[in-house]
Amino acid sequence: MWLSRRFKFCPSCGAEVRYQVPADDNRERATCPSCASIHYENPINVVGTLPIWEGAGGGVQVLLCRRAIEPRLGKWTLPAGFLELGETTEQGALRETDEEAGAHIELGPLYGLMNVVKAGQIHLFYRARLLSTTFNPGPETLEARLFHEHELPWDEIAFHTVRDTLRHFFADWHAGQGFPLHCGDISY
Amino acid sequence: MWLSRRFKFCPSCGAEVRYQVPADDNRERATCPSCASIHYENPINVVGTLPIWEGAGGGVQVLLCRRAIEPRLGKWTLPAGFLELGETTEQGALRETDEEAGAHIELGPLYGLMNVVKAGQIHLFYRARLLSTTFNPGPETLEARLFHEHELPWDEIAFHTVRDTLRHFFADWHAGQGFPLHCGDISY
Repeated sequence: MWLSRRFKFCPSCGAEVRYQVPADDNRERATCPSCASIHYENPINVVGTLPIWEGAGGGVQVLLCRRAIEPRLGKWTLPAGFLELGETTEQGALRETDEEAGAHIELGPLYGLMNVVKAGQIHLFYRARLLSTTFNPGPETLEARLFHEHELPWDEIAFHTVRDTLRHFFADWHAGQGFPLHCGDISY
Repeated sequence: MWLSRRFKFCPSCGAEVRYQVPADDNRERATCPSCASIHYENPINVVGTLPIWEGAGGGVQVLLCRRAIEPRLGKWTLPAGFLELGETTEQGALRETDEEAGAHIELGPLYGLMNVVKAGQIHLFYRARLLSTTFNPGPETLEARLFHEHELPWDEIAFHTVRDTLRHFFADWHAGQGFPLHCGDISY
């Protein structure tokens, strides 16, 4: 079983923690022999958008950002990042789209929920309608631009969940039957 | 802005942390003046199920568990709990249904995704079909039983997200148009 051991010292009192199974539990946790506190580690959420521009001619383009930071520096991604305390998943997706692409969007429904178990992450992508084709990338982005399907840099996509979300979108687009939620697990 | 300050000491080296905005960031984080590590705090996920029993007569019942632990000891809830590292949201929902109710289910699609911002939580509920009406509640549950709609203990429901999920389910059931994903925010 995959288990993080991120805690060496107790964040409440600074004593060295032990990993052991607390009473009434069935998993090892970081437990403090000094103050008796137990520190849990859980998966965290990455939230982002799939920003779409529908041109006048019936075509469709998707906004991708080229990463200015590690991991995957130089690769293309959908705007996304870690959900913060104090915001909803929708607010986080909007914030990341603003921070990474400076894009003006109207948020749509949840479109992807993917478990990335080995990374301890859940990735959530919302569909979004671009209100403008003017972007203002932030410091985490080298470049933000629109791609037609035939232009997509499939070999230069930063993350599996981004690749899957793009594939689902264009498959749904061609099928013409709507955009249902896609749930999945990334097991590699 | 809602902000947790759970860290007093650095879990990597045990030194006292400071809350300050790191370079290239825009939020205060627990930063360690000794080893320079930064410790992030993010919302966590609660995963559970809405276990349904469809009787021979066309009626429907839902499985609730009466809590044997705080918070909300003695109140009724859907089987749910914190998602663990090393499992998918579906696996977590199945595990919690087994641990809390000892119920045999076939997991269905995601039915509810609710942000509980003040608690720093996201609650995810999957629809589930009960394969048996024999339950085996675990130590966190006083009692597990089926309820018809008219029997539901609305004033004794443990959590807002459980109440909303039950309301959505019976509304969808009566409408007869399927069970779409319900997303929402609990702001109180």
